Amino acid sequence: MTSLPVQHRYGEELSHCYGCGRNNALGLHIETHWDGRQGLGRFTPRPEHIALPGFVYGGLLASLVDCHGVATAAAADAGDAGDARICPRYVTASLSVNFLRPTPLGPELELRAWVKERRGRKTVVEVEISALGEIRARGEVVAVPMPTTMKPA
Amino acid sequence: MTSLPVQHRYGEELSHCYGCGRNNALGLHIETHWDGRQGLGRFTPRPEHIALPGFVYGGLLASLVDCHGVATAAAADAGDAGDARICPRYVTASLSVNFLRPTPLGPELELRAWVKERRGRKTVVEVEISALGEIRARGEVVAVPMPTTMKPA
Repeated sequence: MTSLPVQHRYGEELSHCYGCGRNNALGLHIETHWDGRQGLGRFTPRPEHIALPGFVYGGLLASLVDCHGVATAAAADAGDAGDARICPRYVTASLSVNFLRPTPLGPELELRAWVKERRGRKTVVEVEISALGEIRARGEVVAVPMPTTMKPA
Repeated sequence: MTSLPVQHRYGEELSHCYGCGRNNALGLHIETHWDGRQGLGRFTPRPEHIALPGFVYGGLLASLVDCHGVATAAAADAGDAGDARICPRYVTASLSVNFLRPTPLGPELELRAWVKERRGRKTVVEVEISALGEIRARGEVVAVPMPTTMKPA
């Protein structure tokens, strides 16, 4: 596994994302490690990331699906050169999450993602979120390369 | 339109949600107003809710779909007694979001949601997020009444 998270391989001006940008002081700092085949990560929600008492907020889980999925698409695109310093930036065209069972608030979450399919410019990524050894949520992201219209000036 | 947001009609112990709980000091405080037919809301993302410079983070938009959709399901279930002080609590079984076009960061967002379908215990809610008069994202939430296993002791 590459020691450098995928999100640390995005360009400086593309690293402000609330979910995963290293340049966002108030953000979640979601990190994805690419092992050449899948994106792996760990994330411990903060106490305020509550839904109902004892459980993790679904919107936070959707954020994990989003940033971890997009990073996995980007790393897969960068190819086996997993140590390459610069990674292309993808954005999310759509996402979906199935909340299979409640996610306990407290334990570290484990993230796993892989490319399921490529369709033209679209990369479809599957994401699994586990806690205490059980899969709690399954998500899917359709990622596309960042359009030039979104590129910072 | 009822002046009291749906989220202020949930029980005290069910109001800690990061997205919409009035008892979460660090949360987003998403509010839904039920007009007897649809859920309506407004939300201005904070500067840190950035994706790429100039645009709103997709995970934040997914959070809006989540809490606004679930509240709309709950309010529709409470029925025409829109002023009823107590609203049943629903949770999210699944959600999906299509990011139709980038959402500018800065302007207030407009939220609209309505029940599309009921299937047994499931309520399917459609959600639209607009900015500057254009629909930016469309989401769908499958909401179910809070299971007794999630009820705080």
